[in-house]
Amino acid sequence: MQPTRTWVTEAQGDYLELSYKIKAVLFSEQSPFQKVEIVDTDFFGKILLNDDLVMLTEKDEFIYHEMLAHVPLFVHPDPKRVLIIGGGDGGTAREVLRHTGVATCRVVEIDPVVVRACRQHLPGLASSFDQPRLALQIEDGVKFMADTAQTFDVILIDSTDPVGPATPLFGLDFYQQVARCLAPNGIVVSQAESPFMFAAMQRKLLEILCQCFEVVSCYNYSNMSYPGGLWSFAFASPQLHPLQDFESDRPAASDLSFRYYSSAMHQAAFTLPPFMRDRLAPFLTI
Amino acid sequence: MQPTRTWVTEAQGDYLELSYKIKAVLFSEQSPFQKVEIVDTDFFGKILLNDDLVMLTEKDEFIYHEMLAHVPLFVHPDPKRVLIIGGGDGGTAREVLRHTGVATCRVVEIDPVVVRACRQHLPGLASSFDQPRLALQIEDGVKFMADTAQTFDVILIDSTDPVGPATPLFGLDFYQQVARCLAPNGIVVSQAESPFMFAAMQRKLLEILCQCFEVVSCYNYSNMSYPGGLWSFAFASPQLHPLQDFESDRPAASDLSFRYYSSAMHQAAFTLPPFMRDRLAPFLTI
Repeated sequence: MQPTRTWVTEAQGDYLELSYKIKAVLFSEQSPFQKVEIVDTDFFGKILLNDDLVMLTEKDEFIYHEMLAHVPLFVHPDPKRVLIIGGGDGGTAREVLRHTGVATCRVVEIDPVVVRACRQHLPGLASSFDQPRLALQIEDGVKFMADTAQTFDVILIDSTDPVGPATPLFGLDFYQQVARCLAPNGIVVSQAESPFMFAAMQRKLLEILCQCFEVVSCYNYSNMSYPGGLWSFAFASPQLHPLQDFESDRPAASDLSFRYYSSAMHQAAFTLPPFMRDRLAPFLTI
Repeated sequence: MQPTRTWVTEAQGDYLELSYKIKAVLFSEQSPFQKVEIVDTDFFGKILLNDDLVMLTEKDEFIYHEMLAHVPLFVHPDPKRVLIIGGGDGGTAREVLRHTGVATCRVVEIDPVVVRACRQHLPGLASSFDQPRLALQIEDGVKFMADTAQTFDVILIDSTDPVGPATPLFGLDFYQQVARCLAPNGIVVSQAESPFMFAAMQRKLLEILCQCFEVVSCYNYSNMSYPGGLWSFAFASPQLHPLQDFESDRPAASDLSFRYYSSAMHQAAFTLPPFMRDRLAPFLTI
């Protein structure tokens, strides 16, 4: 606890810093993997930081979590078995469990300290861990994927940037295991960085997906608290198309009310600006 | 000149600061209206700041300028007379002049120091002021609109935030004059702030437009160097609809190559996330 701090600063390389004024440090602990902190602010609500990088804020976390979960869950015709790699804050699981047809949502998070911090201070996200259809497993996601004999309909790679513990989650070996564990009409969606700020990482991830899946695409969302604002998810599948196989009128889609996701937003999100499409074109199959 | 500075910091209220590492201060002058600065950076290229707020960076200015200019110019069937209020950097005029059918593009900028700074240090934008179809006028945009007897096909309000000299550009009196000077099938597009960071300003602007025009809408773009990332333009017209009257196959649209704008991006940009649409619904006519 460092109660006298009044700002937290996130550095992007050596060229940009984002500083958030804070009211209090609610949680600060060095785990075996990273420094985990939750701070409180007036404007953004509570903020989760890993190694001084903003993972989420209460004000805008709905955007990331809705767009990661609902795009594949509304493309797959009947998603029952969902796997989340990472996602120790519980926000993605919360959105997955809104789909009543999902039978089990397994969360494989490497860092128990993230889970404990969020259970204590971010119940709006982490209370999803208490729901009966949820199975939380503290384990390295890379090891889990290599070892498991289970098959999944939808796999969500809810990872941090490829620095620190998440680095292998951006590798070919990992995605070969994901492909092995995906049902024939399964879908994997991965946190795919920013076309502005991390263009090289984004390109590398798409290149890997292209080696493992028949259908590879990319969709964008606007995040308030990530640098650069425009961020992406990668969509990959052995056979499902994110727009042609999208059932915009499925009852669940109209029954649920979202704050960022909608049928129209689903479709618009796959429209990429030319500067981004040109760069990724070799790896996009649609 | 303050050659020893190594960072410039933009403050948003008292809750967020964005700091840019700089190589050099190229221009710094207090005009009668604001402090005008141009700094050089490794990552963002040159940055124009007014009163310590980032107006544009060389790296991403194409997004703002393409989306401000091309959306209305590809909706209007034959735009010949274009007016830009503000836009002293020349970037919006550069995009307008790519439309060969435009006969005159008038830029009314209040601050000659902005124009001089950009002519010296940002020729990729300000060289548009040297083109024959361009008429640059140093004058208060509010006074110009109140006094002019001219009629325009497209009016672009390329303004800073409603603090300092741009404050009256977010008022009802100003938009009543804009409506008076717009052709019956004219279009006005205005810089409309951010739904994340400046929701109240955005709502107020839409409310004013709703009192002056039959058709009022809003479209989004992702800006790398504005806080929050998701920013908006307001679209208003006595009669033209931004999607139904959009001719995506007009020859000029396919001949020109853009980096952010495209026919598909034009259409996707009008898809608003539910949290934003709900808030603005009373003022959106489509």
